Amino acid sequence: MSKIFVFGHQNPDTDAIASSYAYAYLAKKAYGLDTETVALGTPNEETAFALDYFGVTAPRIVESATAEGVTQVIMTDHNEFQQSISDIRDVEIYGVVDHHRVANFETANPLFMRLEPVGSASSIVYRSFKENGLEVPKDIAGLLLSGLISDTLLLKSPTTHMTDPKVAEELAAIAGVNLEEYGLSLLKAGTNLASKSADELIDIDAKTFELNGSKVRVAQVNTVDIAEVLERQSEIEVAIENAMETEGYSDFVLMITDIVNSNSEILALGTNTAKVEAAFDFVLDNNHAFLPGAVSRKKQVVPQLTESFGA
Amino acid sequence: MSKIFVFGHQNPDTDAIASSYAYAYLAKKAYGLDTETVALGTPNEETAFALDYFGVTAPRIVESATAEGVTQVIMTDHNEFQQSISDIRDVEIYGVVDHHRVANFETANPLFMRLEPVGSASSIVYRSFKENGLEVPKDIAGLLLSGLISDTLLLKSPTTHMTDPKVAEELAAIAGVNLEEYGLSLLKAGTNLASKSADELIDIDAKTFELNGSKVRVAQVNTVDIAEVLERQSEIEVAIENAMETEGYSDFVLMITDIVNSNSEILALGTNTAKVEAAFDFVLDNNHAFLPGAVSRKKQVVPQLTESFGA
Repeated sequence: MSKIFVFGHQNPDTDAIASSYAYAYLAKKAYGLDTETVALGTPNEETAFALDYFGVTAPRIVESATAEGVTQVIMTDHNEFQQSISDIRDVEIYGVVDHHRVANFETANPLFMRLEPVGSASSIVYRSFKENGLEVPKDIAGLLLSGLISDTLLLKSPTTHMTDPKVAEELAAIAGVNLEEYGLSLLKAGTNLASKSADELIDIDAKTFELNGSKVRVAQVNTVDIAEVLERQSEIEVAIENAMETEGYSDFVLMITDIVNSNSEILALGTNTAKVEAAFDFVLDNNHAFLPGAVSRKKQVVPQLTESFGA
Repeated sequence: MSKIFVFGHQNPDTDAIASSYAYAYLAKKAYGLDTETVALGTPNEETAFALDYFGVTAPRIVESATAEGVTQVIMTDHNEFQQSISDIRDVEIYGVVDHHRVANFETANPLFMRLEPVGSASSIVYRSFKENGLEVPKDIAGLLLSGLISDTLLLKSPTTHMTDPKVAEELAAIAGVNLEEYGLSLLKAGTNLASKSADELIDIDAKTFELNGSKVRVAQVNTVDIAEVLERQSEIEVAIENAMETEGYSDFVLMITDIVNSNSEILALGTNTAKVEAAFDFVLDNNHAFLPGAVSRKKQVVPQLTESFGA
């Protein structure tokens, strides 16, 4: 049997790395597949904290499957092709494990696909371990827990599913950590923005969406102090303008999310800022505006943009 | 909680009716959802045989969800929008249970989606019953068995998954029927083509595919005598020409499948017959050609057409 690459999305976050690493292990042990976890980018500082904490080596980074003779892949934590490996259209998609909407995705053949509207792809992978009666190793439990904490901001985001707190509790027990203590340490590890250039900052956790013909980039950074990030607004705007020109984005929406108080400041540049304002029913002042209670790109930003751009 | 419609594809076959009926029951009992099974067309003669055999009333037929105030739906045995309810783009897709490729499908929000490359959607629904520890009533077991037999031509089609024979065995035991005997009776009930007009015949089991911009209709009829069907070629061709004109199909591919010997005759009309010939490496003679061993539209016809039309 030929090798199958397992990977999360580009600009991997903790859930992307954790879910792919854990699913590759599961597919090897439970289904006998010859899997290898790879990543479509360097782990961010939060993910690096989790990998280091549980003694896991970061997956190697690849840009193409076919270049390595790999013809089958398993996607975790994403399904949209523009967020995936560069040659996704040239390989067979063996399976998908995800918790996002489905868009810009198609296959030539039937496949394994398991999507649930829960807090993290890691939650679904954990359920698959249980269903297969497969013991979760301590390091994998730690990574899956990290993926869930990261995506739900420690179970505070509205993306948290009613089944997720129990998943977190069980994973914390296996991993041998205190959920609240470990969770806060993990999230804080991802808020060290001072060491990042503006170019790096807008790419920490960014995804591209095709909205009614417009190529819209939606990025998110976590912080404990929104004002501190806004002090760098002018250099961030230069970085955004460069990215829009280079990558052909029509719009760039940056969520600056306060993980302690669960709010976001939205910084938006591009040709459709009127649609961004309509999406959130606010007025941009000096290109930014406050969005109280918003912490989830998936539930509180992308659907609103999708509807506004579609109109 | 508002009502959720559960339905299979247009031109429902036995698997579409069975999987939707059984999943609506499961979702009500196991998840507490207020589901109603509906159908996007009249059951064919094979399905009517199964419904009658197990004493199940055919689901009522609907054309629109929103017209009845229904805003959420669960799709079984299909995912492509052109095979679904007319207003599929105006409702929320709560879930999908399917065993086909994914194409022309997208959602605004995360959802439950369970796809497996197995012989029938009914096989997946049966597995969901087991996972939820829910007993399968005798009539539902009979329908699910019928869906699996129908889609795999009694486990002979290459779409049969290695896990399907055991599913069939277990369902036959619950339903209290002999697998081989019941299976042949079911399949033969679907081969009574003499009573059908040519217009009806080409619509018994037909699906539309968007292949690289072309709207291709692929229909299949089961028979025990291919020659008998070809005797009606001229009236069938008139029906096909009418359908192409009315519905805007660029091409119409009819599989006339011999369920006893597991072969098909392909009748193809349209503007891209050269691509159809290239897909199957045969030459059409008087618009038709023999395709030995081919019984599965999904595995032995649609992927080949997709590749040929894509070139």
